[in-house]
Amino acid sequence: MGDCPFCKIASHEAPAVIVYEDEEFVAFMDKRPVSDGHLLVAPKAHYEMLMEMEPELVGKLFTLVARLCRAVWRALRPDGINVLQNNGPAAWQYVSHVHVHIIPRWAGDGIAVQWPARPKRLSELERTAARIRDALVNL
Amino acid sequence: MGDCPFCKIASHEAPAVIVYEDEEFVAFMDKRPVSDGHLLVAPKAHYEMLMEMEPELVGKLFTLVARLCRAVWRALRPDGINVLQNNGPAAWQYVSHVHVHIIPRWAGDGIAVQWPARPKRLSELERTAARIRDALVNL
Repeated sequence: MGDCPFCKIASHEAPAVIVYEDEEFVAFMDKRPVSDGHLLVAPKAHYEMLMEMEPELVGKLFTLVARLCRAVWRALRPDGINVLQNNGPAAWQYVSHVHVHIIPRWAGDGIAVQWPARPKRLSELERTAARIRDALVNL
Repeated sequence: MGDCPFCKIASHEAPAVIVYEDEEFVAFMDKRPVSDGHLLVAPKAHYEMLMEMEPELVGKLFTLVARLCRAVWRALRPDGINVLQNNGPAAWQYVSHVHVHIIPRWAGDGIAVQWPARPKRLSELERTAARIRDALVNL
């Protein structure tokens, strides 16, 4: 994809601080980190969203994410880690190439989320669950 | 783990709206959804954080997450999806049993995050990257 910034990083056409790469994946430091050690992990092949990737390839991607989380945990000793993967502009995806954020967290780091969470009765959840189950068996 | 709410869901001792389960994993509706279709996906075995799981098991977990994202995408037709996995209270983990959030998103749904992102020069990122690389090769 000619203008994709992450394709350019994967092909070494654009500069990045690469932490790990192999034939399929590349991990590099986010240039606008929200915390020290904020990493991005991406497939080298261009996929816009997770739902386009073969689920087995997503599994391989996250096997690497897990290894990198262990490395971040040991190297930086944060208080926590968020693993975040956003699909679509409505979900804060601003580069249209699948990537996973690994965000080391420290108590009082000022990162906050507004969750409009509301308790629901199980019976209220059942209707949506049935729709997802139907889609799952028909994938 | 006797008092773990997700162990109790995995063993069917506590009620939940289960969307999928197999020998290793269970997916169920969040009882306090931040959006319609908010799912949690967890290993049945008790691990507190992702860093304790074998990376290959994390891969299997996210292969399932990818399949569920496809199902949610088809069933609910959201504008986006966040995949979020939190480790440690400092990273918003409130149940100490590894779980992945699948959060369907719609434009204007009121979910917001405060990211204190600041651009950095590549040379500034290199020092942290070197520490993570060292930890990765010594895992």
